[in-house]
Formats: sequence, structure tokens, C-alpha cells
Amino acid sequence: MMRFSTLHNKQPEWMRSSGPQSEIVITSRVRLARNLAHHAFPGWAEPREREEVMEAVLPPLERLGEMKDAFSSDMRDLSSIEKQVLVERHLISREHAAKSSGSASVMNRPQTISIMVNEEDHLRLQSVRPGLQLHSAFTALSELDTELEESITYAFDSKYGYLTACPTNLGTGMRASAMLHLPGLVLSDQINQTIQGANKIGLAVRGLYGEGSEALANLFQISNQTTLGQAEDDIISQLDRVILQLIENEQNARYKLLEDHKSMVQDQVGRAYAILKYAHIISSKEALNCISMIRFGCDLGVFADEEKESINVLLTRIQPAHLQMAAKRKLSSEERDCLRAEIIQSTLFQLTPPDFSDILNLGKENQEDE
Amino acid sequence: MMRFSTLHNKQPEWMRSSGPQSEIVITSRVRLARNLAHHAFPGWAEPREREEVMEAVLPPLERLGEMKDAFSSDMRDLSSIEKQVLVERHLISREHAAKSSGSASVMNRPQTISIMVNEEDHLRLQSVRPGLQLHSAFTALSELDTELEESITYAFDSKYGYLTACPTNLGTGMRASAMLHLPGLVLSDQINQTIQGANKIGLAVRGLYGEGSEALANLFQISNQTTLGQAEDDIISQLDRVILQLIENEQNARYKLLEDHKSMVQDQVGRAYAILKYAHIISSKEALNCISMIRFGCDLGVFADEEKESINVLLTRIQPAHLQMAAKRKLSSEERDCLRAEIIQSTLFQLTPPDFSDILNLGKENQEDE
Repeated sequence: MMRFSTLHNKQPEWMRSSGPQSEIVITSRVRLARNLAHHAFPGWAEPREREEVMEAVLPPLERLGEMKDAFSSDMRDLSSIEKQVLVERHLISREHAAKSSGSASVMNRPQTISIMVNEEDHLRLQSVRPGLQLHSAFTALSELDTELEESITYAFDSKYGYLTACPTNLGTGMRASAMLHLPGLVLSDQINQTIQGANKIGLAVRGLYGEGSEALANLFQISNQTTLGQAEDDIISQLDRVILQLIENEQNARYKLLEDHKSMVQDQVGRAYAILKYAHIISSKEALNCISMIRFGCDLGVFADEEKESINVLLTRIQPAHLQMAAKRKLSSEERDCLRAEIIQSTLFQLTPPDFSDILNLGKENQEDE
Repeated sequence: MMRFSTLHNKQPEWMRSSGPQSEIVITSRVRLARNLAHHAFPGWAEPREREEVMEAVLPPLERLGEMKDAFSSDMRDLSSIEKQVLVERHLISREHAAKSSGSASVMNRPQTISIMVNEEDHLRLQSVRPGLQLHSAFTALSELDTELEESITYAFDSKYGYLTACPTNLGTGMRASAMLHLPGLVLSDQINQTIQGANKIGLAVRGLYGEGSEALANLFQISNQTTLGQAEDDIISQLDRVILQLIENEQNARYKLLEDHKSMVQDQVGRAYAILKYAHIISSKEALNCISMIRFGCDLGVFADEEKESINVLLTRIQPAHLQMAAKRKLSSEERDCLRAEIIQSTLFQLTPPDFSDILNLGKENQEDE
């Protein structure tokens, strides 16, 4: 079994590699909600029944080929900072982090598969991939699911499909989502319109940390709402098509910004660079928004493309629990803001000042009008 | 006679040289309000009488030894941008800039003496010196005043002294003021207390552009309120003593900040450097506040002391009318914000990143507590 410290020191695979469309799509994520037949859902179950479910599912989970040398822990054995680290990596939900005995978390070494036991459902299986790879994220999960079904009898109804604690998950029990970086749509004030458009066709758009969370770093999670009456592959294909359309919209918005608001882009990217390099106290929110602009700058050729890996890493490393793990102690908010600035500077130490020459050459014929 | 363009291209002397206490005191300024006997005050005078006053005072003004090759202009011959340039240099008041025919402005080449004709009073004589030099600013003005009295009969009452349009100027007709840079008192939240203390002993504290103007760049003008029943030298000596006390308070506040809030100082100075170097769009307000932090950084040894001259120059050069004179055309607010960033970057091109080693060494024994 993997220790927490090993897990913590290991970067999730999606940070290190990139996938299709990874300029705009950071990660693709699929999760399945599953429950054991003949057992009350976690919210209704007595402590003893929750323990029984854990005892029934943990051995088959840990036996999965994908879970060799995995990290597996009873939630009661994790400190609140450790739990928060898992939340900040999107490996468990905020709700699961609030759980203690009677719940568990299991995740593989590359942190591409994560399983919550006794969150809202008995099992929540999650798979994550870099870039736009919803189909492959689903396939990986589906294989796992099939393997598990050999030893676990799921609560399944021939009419409704997989039974879940909340009716919004009934049917496939599947939620597919992609994390998109949309600075172009935000800077050109088209983001609200985009979100409303997605909502109209039955998709949800959320901030960096899911439901009810604020949009930070110009990152948006787009996901399906429907789980009933449609096959998994169809849901994913539809989501995929919408995402490809959003990518095109984002690229158009960026192009238009460079054409019409070059100074604004230079200003935003320049300031982000400046603040990350020279601030000594920086909040998580400000840091995330600056990091977003550096990523945008990489896409525009203003910074070296190699910086993108550091940026993916930073998105997580500057979060409160990660900072406290790095400091090996609890930190006040002021201490975190100082340490955050330090870590950003040491991570981005090779970042050179923005070079806008490509931007300035682009559409030079229009420059007179500015 | 000097042309406006020559005046505009010439830096006021106070920007280039420094005086006593110039770390904290930017300039010392004294002005005298004078009126001609047997003539209505400008606010009550008919246009013809205002013209008469101008015809009576301009020749003796232009004959003053100090005013050799001076700049002298009817207000009606100045464009609104030109008038605004004079306001931004503190050579005329905002009220005077609104005047047209029947008013005039005269100032010497080094821009140390400036005279407004038919502002609120027939004559407003002003003298400015770098650093804390109220007495010498007054002496210069007093000599000028004596010289003028040979050809002009002032409205003077043996009981009340010099008669003025507004009773608050009655008596000496003198207002002495100093422009202080007080980042330490502002950052340590002691500035309001300081202002209230000064008010209690009959002094006024105002922002960068006088009455009703906002405090920008941590610059504050402190001046006497009393003009009646006290000799000029006594008023100036009292103001001088208060300013010396404020300088001490400011220095204590700075020392305390470095002792207790080193990170905050590093953050503020670092960010100011970063923004001035990398912003492409910057408002006057933000620029002034950043420039203040660079000046503060020079005082702390974080930047080279030679930068201070550039900073004095920038305080004026980034103002709206100065920007439009530089561009030789009217600019929209957006255009000004872009040009301002450009001018700052070309002026501060030699400014190297902040070096906090002196600050960090200072009081090293306390560093553990931070």
C-alpha cells in the first residue's frame, strides 16, 4: 500500500502529460455512481451497515489490476489537511472530506483513478485524463466497473438502470466533465452567454471546485446533467461535440481580442507576470487568476510553452492544504499568502519577461487604428 | 518672452534639485494674496476694470529682475490643455485655469515663481523650493513683493493688514505649505490621526491638488490656516516645527513597518515595481500610487537613489495634460492610460528589480517572529 506522503509527493499524471486539445482542455473526467444491492444508501445506513459495505467493497477494490500498490485509507485515518489535499487534487469531493469512520478513499499511483467509498453512494468511481479524452476516460472506468461487478452485486433495475442515492444520478450513474480554460471568452465578456447556452442544452457549467464554486483562473467545468434514458457513449459524444464548439468559440474570442484589444491582452498578461514574479503576499484567488494569464500567454507565444507544466503544477500547489503540507504545519492565512508567493517564484524562476513581438506582428495592418 | 512650448519642455527646478529633508518633503511653497487699492476685487469687477488691473500690473511684473525672459500670457491665449499643464505643475490653480480674458499668468524660467493675475485676488504671488525651505521661499517672495510695491499701491489697512477677496486670507495674505511624502504613516494606518492632529493646531492637510482633492501617491500638503494677527515669520516657524515633527513620525512609522511588517513592505514595493515595469494600461491614480512606492523603495535602499529624479519628473509627466502635450493631440482616457504606461517604462528603463537585502538584514534578530 502507498503511504499518504508518497501520494502527496507524486504529481498526478494529468499535470505532467498533455492530451488532445490541451491548449484549452485541462482535464477530462468521468465518474460512475454505484451502490450495492440489498444495502441502505450511505445517508440512510446505520454505522454498522456502512462498515459492512466497506468490508465488502475494499478487498475487491484493492485487488483491481489498476489498483496495484494503490493508496487506500479509511477517512478516519486522514488528518483534515490530508483530506483537503485530496480535494485540491480533485481526487475526492468536499463532501467526502467531511466524512470520517465508515468511509474510505482508494486511488491508484498515477492518480488517474480515484474511488470514494460511502460518499453519497456506496461507490463513486472516477477516472481523469489530460486534455479532451472523455471516451478513453470512460472506457478505463467501464473496464474497472465490469471487473468489480464480478465480485460485487450492484443495485440495478432493468427499467431505471443503476440505482443511486440521488435521483439525478439514476440510470447510467455517470457524470462526464471537462475542465476548460476560457480566458478569451472571459476577457471578451462572452462567458455568461456561453454558460447560458450550455445550460439550455442540458449541460452544467461550474467553477474550479464544482457545484457552487466560484470561477477562478478562468477555469470552467462543463458536464452532462442527464443520466437517464441515454446511453453513456451518446452522452459523452454529445458533450464532446459541445466542447469542440466551445474550443472554437474560445479560439475565435482570442483572435478577436488580439485584433481589437491588443493593449488589454498585453496589459493583463504583463501584469500577471509582474505580480507572480514580484509579489511577496498573494491570495489564492489572485494567484490563480494570474496563473491563468500566464497559461494564456504561453498559448499566445508570449512565454515558452514549457512553462505550461509548471503552471499545471502550480494550480494545485498553491492551494491552502498543499501549502500546509509543504510547510509541514498549520499556517495562518497571512503565512499562506507569503509562502504561496515564495513557491510561485521558485516554481516560475525560469519564466522570462513576456515577449509580445508575435502578438504585435499579428494583424499588423490594423495597428494604426488602435 | 518665453514661449509656452519652451516652458513645457523645461523641467521645473524643484524636480531637478533637492533641498533639506527632501527624503520626505518634496516641495515648500509660499503664496501671497495682494490687491490693488481703489479697484474692485476680480469677482466683483466689471470686465473693463479687470482689464485695467491687468494693464496696471503686467508691466511692473514683467520688469521684475526675477522675471527676465519669463513666460507671460493672457489666459485667453492658452488652450485648455496648456492651462491644465500649468495646473499639473502647481503653477496656477484649477480655478485660474477656468479663467479666460481679463486674467493672466506670469512665471519665471525655472518655474520657481508664478504669478496669477485676476484669480480670486488681483495678484497671487507664489514661490516654490525643493525640500523643506519655507523661510527661503518666503524671503524670495517678500523681496519680489517689496519690489512690486514700488510701482503698485496695494489695498492695505493699518488694522487688518492686506485686504483680500476672501476674509480667510486677510492680514498677511500668506499661505505657506509643504508637500510631504508619507507612505509610512499611510501604510501603518496612522495618517488620519496625523491629519486630525494637524487640524487641531490650526493647520490644513490636503491632497496632491489642494482643497478637496484626493490623497494620491501618499502625498499630503500641509499649510497654515491663519493669516490674521500673526507675523509671517512666526506662522512659518510654527509650520516648520510641525513639519519637522511629522518627518520624525514618518521615520518612526517606517522603522516600525520594517520591524513588524517586512513582508508587507516587500510586497507593496515589489508590486509597484512590477506594475510600472509591465503594465500596458495604467490609470493616473494607480500610477501615482506605484510611483510613491518606488520613491519609498529608494528611501529604503531597495532602488538606487538616482531614480528619485525620474520619480519627481514622472509625478507630473504622467498627468493627463502633460500626456496630451507629449502626444501633440487630444487623447481619450484609454489612449492616455496606454501612453502613460509607455512613458513610465521609458522613464524608468534603468530601474532594476527591488533588492531587499538591506531591509532583510535590518533587525535580523526579529526575523524569527515573522
